[in-house]
Amino acid sequence: MKGSLELTRVAIVGLGLMGGSLAAALKERNACQEVWGIARRKETIDEALQRGFIDKGTCKLANGVKGADVVVLATPVRVIIELIHELSPLLPSGCLLMDMGSTKREVIKAMGALPPHIQPLGGHPMCGKETSGLAAAEANLYEGAIFVLTPLPRTSQEALDLAKELVKAVGARPLVVEAERHDRLVAAISHLPYLLSLALVMTAEEVAAEDDLVWKLAASGFRDTSRLAASGVTMMLDVLVTNREAVEEMLARFRGQMDRLEKALKLGEEKRLRRLIESARRQRTEQLRGATR
Amino acid sequence: MKGSLELTRVAIVGLGLMGGSLAAALKERNACQEVWGIARRKETIDEALQRGFIDKGTCKLANGVKGADVVVLATPVRVIIELIHELSPLLPSGCLLMDMGSTKREVIKAMGALPPHIQPLGGHPMCGKETSGLAAAEANLYEGAIFVLTPLPRTSQEALDLAKELVKAVGARPLVVEAERHDRLVAAISHLPYLLSLALVMTAEEVAAEDDLVWKLAASGFRDTSRLAASGVTMMLDVLVTNREAVEEMLARFRGQMDRLEKALKLGEEKRLRRLIESARRQRTEQLRGATR
Repeated sequence: MKGSLELTRVAIVGLGLMGGSLAAALKERNACQEVWGIARRKETIDEALQRGFIDKGTCKLANGVKGADVVVLATPVRVIIELIHELSPLLPSGCLLMDMGSTKREVIKAMGALPPHIQPLGGHPMCGKETSGLAAAEANLYEGAIFVLTPLPRTSQEALDLAKELVKAVGARPLVVEAERHDRLVAAISHLPYLLSLALVMTAEEVAAEDDLVWKLAASGFRDTSRLAASGVTMMLDVLVTNREAVEEMLARFRGQMDRLEKALKLGEEKRLRRLIESARRQRTEQLRGATR
Repeated sequence: MKGSLELTRVAIVGLGLMGGSLAAALKERNACQEVWGIARRKETIDEALQRGFIDKGTCKLANGVKGADVVVLATPVRVIIELIHELSPLLPSGCLLMDMGSTKREVIKAMGALPPHIQPLGGHPMCGKETSGLAAAEANLYEGAIFVLTPLPRTSQEALDLAKELVKAVGARPLVVEAERHDRLVAAISHLPYLLSLALVMTAEEVAAEDDLVWKLAASGFRDTSRLAASGVTMMLDVLVTNREAVEEMLARFRGQMDRLEKALKLGEEKRLRRLIESARRQRTEQLRGATR
């Protein structure tokens, strides 16, 4: 394995928002020797080349990873898992294979079956937008974001260090977290909000069936709270399906908290309601104070 | 009643985000003869004068509304209701009394008891920010927003026209909606999102009690979905308490929609889950397309 990022050729599989932005950031900062792109559609490769995000590109996986020092999988989680199996006989010896999927347990499990000459490592940058695709990609997407890394027991220190160098090179902050712990925590702060956002839109839709003025009155509050409902469908479906248990745990906890609020409101326990609201407001303000995005 | 806004003296009671922004917008556009401010604290009056939002100000309600042609109540809903009773013997004959409270049914009810020489009218601008107070006020807050007006049976056409003129003068779009209908619709697109936002923060807090890494991983998705939890506590408490029935209806509907999503996930009915997600995504995109805020 090449120990220094600047000497590596980085192949990125999937040039959507995340992969495209990673390519753009690596190129803009001149962080590695070359950036290669692999995408399903020829038009995506052409756009990435034209925007200067990659040095070369191909639609053929085998060609795209040949001679690569680092391969980054940037597709929906279940495609990542398929790609790991598919890449198993194709990856060069000593290659670092990492991913940027939103759940980690099943990815890590698939990585565990790779031949020993490959260095696998899970990754998940805690950033994004509700718009997907290469058109939305931008070089500063990772700026200031936490980038979770989930090494396997077999992952060498050298491979982890190279991944950390890559993460820092695009402006993000590496944070090593165990895969199961990661999945449970993102169920609370990412997958639960997504489901709430969907169910909120579905509720408004239900009300709109009786009175469609409801959409006209929707202002910034509704817009913010429902923003995640605009996320990429396939990406989020993969997330939910590969993290079902943790998501169900968080839904149950959420119901419990909603019940506390509703009970206080229903019983006219105003002091209790005010305490709950004040505490949540304080928590939100204090805990998100330092967050950059 | 003076028929044209530019000849009127407008007194605004409450110089927080909404009242302060209304004063700022009226002054900036030179929309009326004079803007007066009434606030509980002397410091607020001083700040509003210093920023050029009002021509004069006082902490004394009776002095502040003396000689006013239009009085706008811009406080939390239950304070508005108290103010209506308090202002009843104080308002000049022919005066237009309107409010900007977030729920309308109870406000309208209180307005119904005013003496016949006063012209009452409910109002609710569909905009805001999660930051409150005069410091957050800005002249363009109302730009492009829907401004709901809820006339009483006794409200004259002249009074309604004057209110519409005021609404348009600050850049908003007047929309006449019956009070009960308004309250039910905002329960769906404003009060429900608020409660979800609170319960989401409470859930994260519950998880953080076991693993405080959760806050560190919270990214833009959590930030957006929980934004409303930072709203002013007294304002929102008044909203919930004065709109309890409609809020409870929406909570029940929301639970039903969440159950649909969870059931499809739990049973592994992926096609159904995808259909639900795709439909919500499409609705959100299409219905909010035209919205400016």
